[in-house]
Amino acid sequence: MRVIADFTVVPIGVGVSLSKYVAACERVLTELGVAHTLHANGTGVEGEWEEVFAAIRRCHEVVHGMGAPRISTTIKVSTRTDREQSMAEKVESVRGKGGG
Amino acid sequence: MRVIADFTVVPIGVGVSLSKYVAACERVLTELGVAHTLHANGTGVEGEWEEVFAAIRRCHEVVHGMGAPRISTTIKVSTRTDREQSMAEKVESVRGKGGG
Amino acid sequence: MRVIADFTVVPIGVGVSLSKYVAACERVLTELGVAHTLHANGTGVEGEWEEVFAAIRRCHEVVHGMGAPRISTTIKVSTRTDREQSMAEKVESVRGKGGG
Amino acid sequence: MRVIADFTVVPIGVGVSLSKYVAACERVLTELGVAHTLHANGTGVEGEWEEVFAAIRRCHEVVHGMGAPRISTTIKVSTRTDREQSMAEKVESVRGKGGG
Repeated sequence: MRVIADFTVVPIGVGVSLSKYVAACERVLTELGVAHTLHANGTGVEGEWEEVFAAIRRCHEVVHGMGAPRISTTIKVSTRTDREQSMAEKVESVRGKGGG
Repeated sequence: MRVIADFTVVPIGVGVSLSKYVAACERVLTELGVAHTLHANGTGVEGEWEEVFAAIRRCHEVVHGMGAPRISTTIKVSTRTDREQSMAEKVESVRGKGGG
Repeated sequence: MRVIADFTVVPIGVGVSLSKYVAACERVLTELGVAHTLHANGTGVEGEWEEVFAAIRRCHEVVHGMGAPRISTTIKVSTRTDREQSMAEKVESVRGKGGG
Repeated sequence: MRVIADFTVVPIGVGVSLSKYVAACERVLTELGVAHTLHANGTGVEGEWEEVFAAIRRCHEVVHGMGAPRISTTIKVSTRTDREQSMAEKVESVRGKGGG
């Protein structure tokens, strides 16, 4: 099952500066070969359900390993059976209708 | 890795009445033996990472099978290494401090 | 515009124990007279758009005032023009279809 | 109170193609002068609390006006009192630590 997802990892108990944890997650995605795009409030990912959620799980392991005792993550995930669509196509579709 | 999660499934392309799809997801959780609590805006679940996300994936399959061509799901997932905590304990903790 | 919403406040930079901040937000909702229901992963609220978002804003002010330098909040908000529906009715509707 | 937020609007009851509604929201943000950046799974916005939430509310009005009887929106909002930060700086901060 193919998914487009977006997730935001919030490590808790490690102070206010979170960017190094986000950077570590980005490296996890790169190492696992999961297509991803960083934006200001999270990271977009696309791939098979299993690989995407295994990557987010791995990200939790890595961030806990960096010393965060607690992590709160928000994930949006969409699946569709009517047609395939990539993240790039979603943005294009909105722009083609005068948004963005 | 133990998780507490909360998810909201929004089937798209099947009209405005979504409760039968949510009910089908609740039955998936029951059948798979995943501890869960329905509330007005989603469902709380707790268990191992793999079982929780496999259940949400199965829910997507079932809802697509009911005719929904597109599904948009929001998931909050938290993990912690400092101690174990259940959903019931989270609510108790807030109530014990005068909230709720 | 009437809304049903659900929000989770995550204070950042104040350690791992967050329940006292959540309890403070619950008291804000009570003081402002906003109908709400605490659950394990957030708080459901219902009311007019302005009152609901003013209450969440007030919650941010209070939690910052308690010493949290950074707050990350996730909000789900739904509006509908076809009919009125309460949080209690949403749960009933799912239960009536064999879920929950 | 300055915020960085990210929101995803899901119109319900209008079929599977949602891009024209998202495009309408983007135009609302532009007309109201709210700084925003479209990405594949939502839109990042920054500004004062009131202007950001008034814009999302206006977006709901416009999308209902286009015929959507029901809208489910997910919003992430963060505030901080320790320092000012823009969406561009958040991305830079992660990239500077080897992510993205």
